[in-house]
Amino acid sequence: MTSHVKLRKEKGSLAEYESQMKDLRTQLTDQIKILDSQVEVKQQQLSDLSEFLRRRGDIEAEYARALDKLTERFTHKTKKYVFGVLSSFNDDCNVWSVLLTQTRLESREHAALGDTCCNTLTQRLTHSMEDTHRLHKRSKEVGVQMQDELIKVTTELQTALKTYNQYHTDCLIAEGKLKEAERLEERHTGKSSELGLGQSSGQRRSSVKKMERLMEKVKIMRETQLKCTKARNDYLLNLAAANAEMNKYYLQDVSTLIDCCDLGFHLSVDRVIRCYLASRWRIQKAEETGLKQLETAMTSLDQSGDRDALLQQHDAAFCLPFRFNYHPHEGDQVDAESQVRYELETRFQQLQSRLAAVTLETEEISKTLKATLASLLDTMCNGDSNSAPDVTSSQSHDTIGGVSAPKLAIAKRRANQQETETYYFTVRECLGLR
Amino acid sequence: MTSHVKLRKEKGSLAEYESQMKDLRTQLTDQIKILDSQVEVKQQQLSDLSEFLRRRGDIEAEYARALDKLTERFTHKTKKYVFGVLSSFNDDCNVWSVLLTQTRLESREHAALGDTCCNTLTQRLTHSMEDTHRLHKRSKEVGVQMQDELIKVTTELQTALKTYNQYHTDCLIAEGKLKEAERLEERHTGKSSELGLGQSSGQRRSSVKKMERLMEKVKIMRETQLKCTKARNDYLLNLAAANAEMNKYYLQDVSTLIDCCDLGFHLSVDRVIRCYLASRWRIQKAEETGLKQLETAMTSLDQSGDRDALLQQHDAAFCLPFRFNYHPHEGDQVDAESQVRYELETRFQQLQSRLAAVTLETEEISKTLKATLASLLDTMCNGDSNSAPDVTSSQSHDTIGGVSAPKLAIAKRRANQQETETYYFTVRECLGLR
Repeated sequence: MTSHVKLRKEKGSLAEYESQMKDLRTQLTDQIKILDSQVEVKQQQLSDLSEFLRRRGDIEAEYARALDKLTERFTHKTKKYVFGVLSSFNDDCNVWSVLLTQTRLESREHAALGDTCCNTLTQRLTHSMEDTHRLHKRSKEVGVQMQDELIKVTTELQTALKTYNQYHTDCLIAEGKLKEAERLEERHTGKSSELGLGQSSGQRRSSVKKMERLMEKVKIMRETQLKCTKARNDYLLNLAAANAEMNKYYLQDVSTLIDCCDLGFHLSVDRVIRCYLASRWRIQKAEETGLKQLETAMTSLDQSGDRDALLQQHDAAFCLPFRFNYHPHEGDQVDAESQVRYELETRFQQLQSRLAAVTLETEEISKTLKATLASLLDTMCNGDSNSAPDVTSSQSHDTIGGVSAPKLAIAKRRANQQETETYYFTVRECLGLR
Repeated sequence: MTSHVKLRKEKGSLAEYESQMKDLRTQLTDQIKILDSQVEVKQQQLSDLSEFLRRRGDIEAEYARALDKLTERFTHKTKKYVFGVLSSFNDDCNVWSVLLTQTRLESREHAALGDTCCNTLTQRLTHSMEDTHRLHKRSKEVGVQMQDELIKVTTELQTALKTYNQYHTDCLIAEGKLKEAERLEERHTGKSSELGLGQSSGQRRSSVKKMERLMEKVKIMRETQLKCTKARNDYLLNLAAANAEMNKYYLQDVSTLIDCCDLGFHLSVDRVIRCYLASRWRIQKAEETGLKQLETAMTSLDQSGDRDALLQQHDAAFCLPFRFNYHPHEGDQVDAESQVRYELETRFQQLQSRLAAVTLETEEISKTLKATLASLLDTMCNGDSNSAPDVTSSQSHDTIGGVSAPKLAIAKRRANQQETETYYFTVRECLGLR
């Protein structure tokens, strides 16, 4: 009865181990599956990044080609300003040449980015994909070996448990046999003592033999017990080893395995993006320099300088050609007779008072002219700044009767401008014909 | 004879004036021609600038469309990383989302630049061309009026000179006539004194008449002389006026005329380029922000963080599942009999010395492993930095046997890398299976 319970217990503990082992195997398989799916995600990410950069590279190359074509076209077209006959607007030419130089530089930088994206970076990502694949394969091999080792250790534990159980059962059997033999001997000894004290030599001999058999059984039991103890110790050692192996695998090896799978992946992505960033920063810097140069060229735009250059260039047409000389007749004596003197003095006084009036009027008109010019230039400026481009506002305009509000404003501004302009020219004509 | 010389001189001075007037007219016509050609250059420059900006705008719009398409494509594609089942690489997702957000922003900014170039700026330049045309026309009208005024004043001078010459001639004729009459009178008076002192009343009457005629001639001469003086004074005044008008026209009016033609031209070019610059600076700023965000995302790339996230996400597969429990048999007494104790002690000592040896060896291997890993990552990095993209170097590679030097270097590096990798995994297996 006790032996039956013990067997059930034995079976129970073995069944627990077997169920644990089954769970363990499932878990280990899941782990490999997860690592497999991880590598797929990584490959997909690398492949997507590669495609993204290749397409971006194509876009940059196309952009660079278009900018280069634009520069070529206008370098040819605007040469006449620089070297042609009519090159008085030197500053403007400067603006043109800065604009074209800048555009050419932009084209070159974007072409370089395109080349980096399409060649250097996609090649690196291809290498990274190969590396990821190979590293995953190798890591998986190492992982499977680690798992086999774990399974081996746990299987050894199971074997040790079985052996322990077996030897314990053997022990119990040996104990049982000894007890049975002792019980029989006791009963026999009791019988012979009941039968009488006299023992035949045959009886004595058989008694010695029985004793020897008993001793033999004790010896077997002892040996079995020793075996059982050793098996238990072995089981305990295997148990400690298995738990240690489990700890090592789950707390260290799994991390190491993932690290091996990841080896170089983050580094590759980092380096690729950093290289892309470096190329982009180069463009930023080049464009910033270009824009600053254009700004400088703009500040050197100078109307009066251009006017003076034009006057100098066409010196023959614009210089004061001569003075009208006085050609008096020989002996024409300049004598102011009283009548002439009186007339001259009267005329002088008339002219002086007229001059005073005109000077006053001219000063007034000059003021009006200045104010009108300022207002005219202001109209030109304000109209512009009001319709300055803005990402947000340029996408949603209020419309009045199908015409957008800015358009109406521009039309109004331009009408206003022309009105001021007409007034300006009328005043200028007034002043000019004095 | 003297009168003939004078007439020649008169003709000479008139001829000088006429030749000067002819030169003046030619110069004035040339000035108008120069202003006409100037306006053509300006119109051409404005038209070229407008075309340049329109084409640039088209290029920007096309670039923006391509970037937008790229973003759309990959936003859809990479959604699975962010929301899918296999989203352990959170940091990478972050890099992706920053990359896509940045690209989308770039697209929007370049689209805005394209819009500004194609619409706002070309419209402004069209207005500027209209303004230049109109201002030139008006300025030319004013200029022609100023020139007419100048011609009028110089023509008046010529007329005054002619009048002066005429009156001077008249003066000479009157003088001559008086002298002739005086000479005749003198001769007549001499004859009558020769003939006798007695004078008849008839003779006296005729003498009075002659005296009267002489007085008449003196009066005529005086009047002619006065007229001549007035004409000379008028001529002098006209001369001064003409020279003043010439000075005014050449030293002031011509400049004013050119200024009127230029009115708003430099301002327009300035404003258009500044608006273009503003749009470009917006892009610069937006891209700089984007690149910095990408840099930040890159610094947050973290392999160990990703590994821990993966372990947490797949907790069921990676957590330590259980401990193997000790299942002793009931009444299994742990007694260390001397024999077993001796065996155990021996085994313990054996294990201890083995452990010491293995620990020492493991430490050595760990060092090798660390060094190998460092070397492996170094190979990955160095190979990259050696083939870092450079505008100048990427265009001229030395080639050895048809294969470019960088390609050979890369191949060598990759072979080296795989060798180190193999060594690394061999060592790791050694260590893993302990």
